[in-house]
Amino acid sequence: MDDDGQIETSLAEIQSFFDSAPPLKDREGIITKVQDFIHKNSSSSGIGKAARVVCVTSGGTTVPLEQRCVRYIDNFSSGRRGAASTEYFLEAGYSVIFLYRSGTCQPYCSTLPDDPFLNCFDASDDTAIQVHPSFAKEVKRAIKENRAAVLGGRLLKLSFTTIFEYLQMLQLIATSMNTLGPSAMFYLAAAVSDFYVPWETMNVHKIQSGSGPLDISLAQVPKMISALRREWAPLTFCISFKLETDSKILLEKARRALKKNKVHLVVANELSTRKEEVIVVAENEEIVVRRNQSKAEAEVERPLVALLVDRHSAYIKHSGS
Amino acid sequence: MDDDGQIETSLAEIQSFFDSAPPLKDREGIITKVQDFIHKNSSSSGIGKAARVVCVTSGGTTVPLEQRCVRYIDNFSSGRRGAASTEYFLEAGYSVIFLYRSGTCQPYCSTLPDDPFLNCFDASDDTAIQVHPSFAKEVKRAIKENRAAVLGGRLLKLSFTTIFEYLQMLQLIATSMNTLGPSAMFYLAAAVSDFYVPWETMNVHKIQSGSGPLDISLAQVPKMISALRREWAPLTFCISFKLETDSKILLEKARRALKKNKVHLVVANELSTRKEEVIVVAENEEIVVRRNQSKAEAEVERPLVALLVDRHSAYIKHSGS
Repeated sequence: MDDDGQIETSLAEIQSFFDSAPPLKDREGIITKVQDFIHKNSSSSGIGKAARVVCVTSGGTTVPLEQRCVRYIDNFSSGRRGAASTEYFLEAGYSVIFLYRSGTCQPYCSTLPDDPFLNCFDASDDTAIQVHPSFAKEVKRAIKENRAAVLGGRLLKLSFTTIFEYLQMLQLIATSMNTLGPSAMFYLAAAVSDFYVPWETMNVHKIQSGSGPLDISLAQVPKMISALRREWAPLTFCISFKLETDSKILLEKARRALKKNKVHLVVANELSTRKEEVIVVAENEEIVVRRNQSKAEAEVERPLVALLVDRHSAYIKHSGS
Repeated sequence: MDDDGQIETSLAEIQSFFDSAPPLKDREGIITKVQDFIHKNSSSSGIGKAARVVCVTSGGTTVPLEQRCVRYIDNFSSGRRGAASTEYFLEAGYSVIFLYRSGTCQPYCSTLPDDPFLNCFDASDDTAIQVHPSFAKEVKRAIKENRAAVLGGRLLKLSFTTIFEYLQMLQLIATSMNTLGPSAMFYLAAAVSDFYVPWETMNVHKIQSGSGPLDISLAQVPKMISALRREWAPLTFCISFKLETDSKILLEKARRALKKNKVHLVVANELSTRKEEVIVVAENEEIVVRRNQSKAEAEVERPLVALLVDRHSAYIKHSGS
């Protein structure tokens, strides 16, 4: 989701970002989970047909303004696109690492009302809990399918909150995924902060008010997608996203990101129409993908994922694996 | 809650904040809900004993950095304190207006795991949904008690996201609550932003990266508590909160807030110990309230709300109503 900067990101900048970041909690535990998941899902496929694994990133990252964090800058993202796309990737036979912002939309839950726990159930006196009839079908589907995917070992959920957690986790997932070669995919739908406050220059305590206006100076987050493409997982099929609120600059920015980061496809979307249509930008073409408006439940992620799976197949074939 | 500024907030500053804020959506609908709730809960009490109503505010407010908002500054708050306190106020016979940040912790849910919808239920093939045995008691309690309080008309839930929404809603609730006189209470547990970007100076579109570091200049949010006390609801018993990460300045800041805003009590809490103890600061005393450590489920909000209910009773008596 990164904006494309004017300045080429050097690997030194990236190293310096990681060096100054607060250490990731339970790093070893996360590495073990990711490696076990990849091992299990790559060895379970038949000979001659490589198992496909996609890492879907979802939701926005936060930028702490204080080390003992009370205030932070956040990026708007419900995580609905990543959650819905995960369902369609699972349906298409992929195993999915779902790297999501804590608290955002979960797979199989995107059609449920807000706060489904309190809004979908009834409990009359002394009887068992009942699903409210108008949500019966969706609730049962959500709980059942989520359980099947997680317990079946085809869906690994990992959550993040800050930009520091997100980028450290992305790096360790990417280096593990690279062992899968071209049959792995990155679907980078998360809304990643463009600016941050370097950890060592940050206030330790809550910033005090009472002394007039506050000026915050933010540094640019190094553009990690090109590091992912060049260093971490060069063999992996890689799709990035570009969100703008101004349709006039959207396509131009998507084309520039494609070239600069050397990703395989960029999904361009405008904030106000993002549930209706997206434009998939490739090197020599631009494909408009629209949701099927004749069906109430047809989401734009269904045709989008179908298109990406096709392109991924062509990429695998072309790579000769 | 608000830090106490050096500069006395003038009513003109507050008026100017409201004048420049984006208009509250469904303002008339919210006013009707609040007035109906107050009317119903004040007229249902017996003669000679005024019904008690408390407005509990909960969760953090956001400060948009763009009008078509992609990025915003947020305040950390899970909303657990406001949610748990709401349960104890209901238990003590109060009716509660729960003004909460969208997505934060709900009453009766504070002991449940994250994402209870997906983590508390099982669905085996072709059978009905089952509550996972280890959560059976909590899940049933949460759904049943929430439903009883909402359908029984004793709990009104209203959600906000931005600082603009929060303060506009607080003002209209306060002016309605003032009709109840001393039997109404404000329990201002929400984490309100101290700084904001005035709407008219805000970028319309997403801020573009790529041109070096970003400098943001934030104005101070006018201190609304003193307006609430002096103008909106002068008769209401009012409790504000003070959160700091630095214990050295906490009590001094709480004392200053008590004096400056003329609230009845300030609950002082430090980020790292806030689940274990709080200090209630009054004009002539400071009372340390600790949770009962011998019971696993005993939250600090239980003795805190009990103390506040006592003080509120004394206030009502003293006011001669």
